[in-house]
Amino acid sequence: MLRRVLCTVLFVGALPPLAEASQGHISVVLLGATGDLAKKYLWQGLFQLYMDQVSSGHSFTFHGAALTALEPGQRLMFDVLKKLACPPDESPDRCAVLKDQFLKLSQYHQLKTAENYTVLNREIETLLRQEGLKEAGRIFYFSVPPFAYTEIARHINSSCRPPPGAWLRVVLEKPFGHDLASAQQLAAELTSFFREEEMYRVDHYLGKQAVAHILPFRDQNRQFLDPIWNRHHVERVEIVLKETVDAKGRTSFYEQYGVIRDVLQNHLTEALMFLTMELPANVTRAEEVLQSKLQAFQSLRGLEKNSAVLGQYQAYASQVQEELQKAQDYISTTPTFAGVLVHSDSLRWEGVPFLLTSGKALDERVGYVRVLFKNRAYCTQRETLRDAGHSQCKAKQIIFYIGHGTLNTPAVLVSRNLFRPVMPEGSWREAVGQSDLHIFGQPLSDYYVYSPVKERDAYSVLISNIYHARKDFFITTENLLASWGFWTPLLDSISHQPPRLYPGGAENQHLLDFEMVSGQVAFILAEPVELLNPNKLMPSDYRTIQSKFRQRPLVSAWSEDLISQLASDIEQTASRTVARSGQFHLALSGGSSPVVLFQRLARHHYAFPWKHTHIWLVDERCVPLTDTESNFFSLHSHLLQSVRVPYFNVHPMPVHLNQRLCVEEDRGTELYAKEIMALVANASFDLVLLGVGTDGHTASLFPHSENGLEGAQTVVLTESPVRPHQRMSLSLPLINKARQVFVLVLGRGKHDITALLSRVGHEPRKWPVSGVNPSSGQLVWYVDYEALLG
Amino acid sequence: MLRRVLCTVLFVGALPPLAEASQGHISVVLLGATGDLAKKYLWQGLFQLYMDQVSSGHSFTFHGAALTALEPGQRLMFDVLKKLACPPDESPDRCAVLKDQFLKLSQYHQLKTAENYTVLNREIETLLRQEGLKEAGRIFYFSVPPFAYTEIARHINSSCRPPPGAWLRVVLEKPFGHDLASAQQLAAELTSFFREEEMYRVDHYLGKQAVAHILPFRDQNRQFLDPIWNRHHVERVEIVLKETVDAKGRTSFYEQYGVIRDVLQNHLTEALMFLTMELPANVTRAEEVLQSKLQAFQSLRGLEKNSAVLGQYQAYASQVQEELQKAQDYISTTPTFAGVLVHSDSLRWEGVPFLLTSGKALDERVGYVRVLFKNRAYCTQRETLRDAGHSQCKAKQIIFYIGHGTLNTPAVLVSRNLFRPVMPEGSWREAVGQSDLHIFGQPLSDYYVYSPVKERDAYSVLISNIYHARKDFFITTENLLASWGFWTPLLDSISHQPPRLYPGGAENQHLLDFEMVSGQVAFILAEPVELLNPNKLMPSDYRTIQSKFRQRPLVSAWSEDLISQLASDIEQTASRTVARSGQFHLALSGGSSPVVLFQRLARHHYAFPWKHTHIWLVDERCVPLTDTESNFFSLHSHLLQSVRVPYFNVHPMPVHLNQRLCVEEDRGTELYAKEIMALVANASFDLVLLGVGTDGHTASLFPHSENGLEGAQTVVLTESPVRPHQRMSLSLPLINKARQVFVLVLGRGKHDITALLSRVGHEPRKWPVSGVNPSSGQLVWYVDYEALLG
Repeated sequence: MLRRVLCTVLFVGALPPLAEASQGHISVVLLGATGDLAKKYLWQGLFQLYMDQVSSGHSFTFHGAALTALEPGQRLMFDVLKKLACPPDESPDRCAVLKDQFLKLSQYHQLKTAENYTVLNREIETLLRQEGLKEAGRIFYFSVPPFAYTEIARHINSSCRPPPGAWLRVVLEKPFGHDLASAQQLAAELTSFFREEEMYRVDHYLGKQAVAHILPFRDQNRQFLDPIWNRHHVERVEIVLKETVDAKGRTSFYEQYGVIRDVLQNHLTEALMFLTMELPANVTRAEEVLQSKLQAFQSLRGLEKNSAVLGQYQAYASQVQEELQKAQDYISTTPTFAGVLVHSDSLRWEGVPFLLTSGKALDERVGYVRVLFKNRAYCTQRETLRDAGHSQCKAKQIIFYIGHGTLNTPAVLVSRNLFRPVMPEGSWREAVGQSDLHIFGQPLSDYYVYSPVKERDAYSVLISNIYHARKDFFITTENLLASWGFWTPLLDSISHQPPRLYPGGAENQHLLDFEMVSGQVAFILAEPVELLNPNKLMPSDYRTIQSKFRQRPLVSAWSEDLISQLASDIEQTASRTVARSGQFHLALSGGSSPVVLFQRLARHHYAFPWKHTHIWLVDERCVPLTDTESNFFSLHSHLLQSVRVPYFNVHPMPVHLNQRLCVEEDRGTELYAKEIMALVANASFDLVLLGVGTDGHTASLFPHSENGLEGAQTVVLTESPVRPHQRMSLSLPLINKARQVFVLVLGRGKHDITALLSRVGHEPRKWPVSGVNPSSGQLVWYVDYEALLG
Repeated sequence: MLRRVLCTVLFVGALPPLAEASQGHISVVLLGATGDLAKKYLWQGLFQLYMDQVSSGHSFTFHGAALTALEPGQRLMFDVLKKLACPPDESPDRCAVLKDQFLKLSQYHQLKTAENYTVLNREIETLLRQEGLKEAGRIFYFSVPPFAYTEIARHINSSCRPPPGAWLRVVLEKPFGHDLASAQQLAAELTSFFREEEMYRVDHYLGKQAVAHILPFRDQNRQFLDPIWNRHHVERVEIVLKETVDAKGRTSFYEQYGVIRDVLQNHLTEALMFLTMELPANVTRAEEVLQSKLQAFQSLRGLEKNSAVLGQYQAYASQVQEELQKAQDYISTTPTFAGVLVHSDSLRWEGVPFLLTSGKALDERVGYVRVLFKNRAYCTQRETLRDAGHSQCKAKQIIFYIGHGTLNTPAVLVSRNLFRPVMPEGSWREAVGQSDLHIFGQPLSDYYVYSPVKERDAYSVLISNIYHARKDFFITTENLLASWGFWTPLLDSISHQPPRLYPGGAENQHLLDFEMVSGQVAFILAEPVELLNPNKLMPSDYRTIQSKFRQRPLVSAWSEDLISQLASDIEQTASRTVARSGQFHLALSGGSSPVVLFQRLARHHYAFPWKHTHIWLVDERCVPLTDTESNFFSLHSHLLQSVRVPYFNVHPMPVHLNQRLCVEEDRGTELYAKEIMALVANASFDLVLLGVGTDGHTASLFPHSENGLEGAQTVVLTESPVRPHQRMSLSLPLINKARQVFVLVLGRGKHDITALLSRVGHEPRKWPVSGVNPSSGQLVWYVDYEALLG
């Protein structure tokens, strides 16, 4: 029956002999056999696989499948197969023979109903039996929209699994979800049908020769890279995919996804991982690579709204309106351009900016990964008299040139003043000869340049890797979810943010240039007025409100702005104090509100004089310092471990002495009081940061507390109404000696107490915070709108 | 009498009328009137002063003086005066008239004996009386060798002081000493004759127009510079003075001084101060400037041997031999080239490299101060399509171009993508017009370029500033001593270091290029063999030796390789241990040897599992932890502050309890023992790092110690024979419970004890280290070649 079908499809002679194969037979089923991707890349990749592996000892059949009925489907598919090209590195004669064979080995199937799948399975089994072939395995390539995945997966799982001893490989094409939740759901569904090792999720960037060579390059050049592949030597890394085309004709897809989901979450992130991960001992072991990659994901610093700049080419809006039949006032915030600043907090990469950039309708089509090294040299001889090739003062870079652009070929470039790289001889060759080209500001002659011996498109590479079961070229479920876990917070935070409009092409000029400022990015130029979308939603234009609360200065804003203002004010106080007295004594409260403040201080305030700052605790819970409930532990996790406060300047409260917690006779309060007396002039802290509880407590001074509201004791043990009950706290009289006190109040939950406090006077026994009243220092209230206005 | 002398000297008409002046008369006495400096610059500067100030209301006479007798001295001086040039910005007619007057107002004096000075004083008084002039003041310009200073100063002080109401200004030329001690002595001598405000120490760099404009520039451009004049924006600063000439003919001076004393300690340091100092409110107030400068000096990080690279041009040795009649085997270590890396630890500049470079026999003559800013931008458009002028991706720099070089004029250059500077209109003008010149890799058109309206040589500027009493252009005693205080430690540490030989001129190629590595500098290229001084010790090519020492494994190598091996072994142990047990307990010794190890671990071992490492001390000195003598302080400075060990995992020894040090009843040893018991399984450290003293001590266990060599106590108080005597230490029995012990022995000083230890058995009372013998753990000796082989 197979022969009959083949004959009707192909109108040609006998099937090439299959039975000679001793390694067994492989059936490849391409679902979506007449779709765009199949037409453009997949059939060609399968043909390439056949050419490469025809003598491997395996025999093959290729099964195109789609929803289309048999006759028209056959015709459509045949039209595609007829156009298969012979690669330039193949002899035309051999290619013609092989193409002929390939066509004979290929057939079309309509796969729509459960019955269709059963039939397909029967046909494969029949052929194998007829030809006396052992089955090696089956490849099912899903080139179909993701909504069809589950259905197809179910059919394959129930009807098309090969018999025991033969393998199943299902190849999946993105998108793999829209955010973390949807990716998890899709993954869960697929996992109910396939085992992890059966799934091959394609990110075609991993098939790009230059990208695929990043890890081997790092491995083979360990001797050169070991000393320099780190924050001490790398200035910045750029991972860039620029396109000239726009989204026209694809807006139904694009409008849902945008550039970050389309390119950054997958392609650029994978390149990022290859660069940042610690090298496993064996870079070809998929499992080792995966583990390193997952670790690298864990080291990435979380993205925030201002980690990205976003753009949208001007014509996009009208394309969407037209293609999706949207109303004239429909506004899309889908970005078609993004520049994202990524930081890794690993020891190796801490502080090195990784800039991921992609966009449509830009000035050129090009993809590259560029590692720029710091210039640490001073060249005594003037430039014109230097022997150019070896000058250590020229830029030093390693570039994985993915394709297109000036070079128009995949390549690996290494500055000649860096090192001559080790490259695998069979697959990469050094480019020789003169060239006037300039790459990243330097003539090509400044680099060692290598290009692939055989230039292969990504899908050929990937199909070959599926055949070889090289799972390190594919995205595992864990990897996928780690990536979505990294990107989803950014995607959520920008979902309503209007992107900057840009005209497209070379006219963009400097409009999309951006710069790094304190760990964030921003466009350099102001947006020109004529490009502004008149309907554009602007982030609310409230300014930080400055007013009075309890007769003291009040700063109020939405919580994010408030925290940013508070952090700046603390830094300013710190700098001024250090300039005046050489040190800064800062007492910090526990609780949840300060956490965001700590994070902000850790990430955005590089000029903070940490080296001269002493950190004190306002209060502590009587638990070991390493307990997650400990205030100090939280302070450590969110702030101290990210900044460089000298060990000697960190002063946790001694709640844990002699292996027990807050026992009075261990005299922890006295110890702390003495430490304060010894180091803080006049026991007057430069700045005390307080919070307020819904019951009006502050520090760990609770209503009707016996200790700490008055009297001479400066550090006291108190009782909290909530667990852990035992607390240590600075006393109100000590707090009131401070030069400056900031009280931070955040969230709707604090509205009632805020309203109450605005009315009551000095009643510390009822509401301890009402007793905060620095005798000669300044008190400022930082209350967010939610707490203030409800 | 004055008239008679003038007539004999000048053979020309009447003295210009002096009595018209109402501001009073100024007598300028130039000591060393016929010397090189006077010939080349000083007389011309005095003539310029006269031209500028002839209508100021002051009258002048100019008194050249030297040791030469009257007649020949007159002749010599007259020859110089005849050659005085008219500046291009002066009309030739006016200049000729003024020159004529200037000659008439000038006379020569022999100043040799006390009597000569008395006569000079009388002549000045007589003239004033005869002409009916009020005396404004007297300038004595010392253009004489420094050994003559004291004698002359004494004479002036005793015989030539003007009467009350008129000022005295003495102008001094460098060298002002040879190091801190000699500068202090000279300063003390001068201070016994002159008040601080009477002394004008010349650093002629302060008269260079571009240098003199650094502070005014910073002041006038505060609005632009305030946000960027700091470590967050400045990438590096280069302060450079390159010369093509060599020291031929001047070796008698040069051989004593060398390039650092000749150029860096004064000229380049002054420029450095102008850049780094905090701007005083009023930059023309000498006292405010001085205070800011002194503060900036205090912030400079101390220089070490490896803060500098040194060179000597090849012909220098023979020039010295010839000119100073030295023997053929005389070897000079005087540097004629130096590149020095300076760091300021101020908050503003911490981490920014300041590279000071100067040398003779280089490829070009040029001087500049270059501030290079960081590139924080990503330019989305490709270079060729960018509007060049405004690209934020081009280099951003501010250059104070002192003179010569490509531009051949003093200039101030500011990158156009930075800001358009505010420049004083009267004295600086913008250069316009096309130019093909490139400055620091960029076409001149990338900069705003300003040059002086009137180009003045440094001495003219300085003489004018002496006249105007602008003391901020001169070096005060405090300033001078601060600079010597900064440079002297480096000068001492390199005094016997052989400089790299270089051929001179353009042939130097990359030989003098240097690079920054971990806060130090080193030449980039290895020294070519043909230039090597045959007497120089070469590091030999031994490989790491692995063998046995005291029946235990021995690793030996040159110290640098040994440290690198040890660091790797520690990391490997750490990683294995963390993989096995989740944590790693590392006990580290104090002393100097481990410092290099700590630095290596901090800088090169990014994969070290610090997060899971506990740091313990093997021993501690009984000083506060923040004392620089504390082992923990050293460990903190060189390791802990650079890596991320959680606060909870750091375990300093409790030597400082209850505000006192190592008092037994405070039970610090028990406390530490308990902490170890609580956290370290079985009190068995994963790794203990030890050193060895020349007396065979290890940890702080000294020969014949009463505690710690045996017995049950795990942590003990001991007595060291050297200060600080009191110590805390782990005991031998505890050390011997460790899973692994590494003993590090470095340096020739340890050769004797190493040799001894190789012979003796287990005698811990005599040599405590011989008792290190882990009961079930491993012991490895790391001994460098110098310690092993002597």
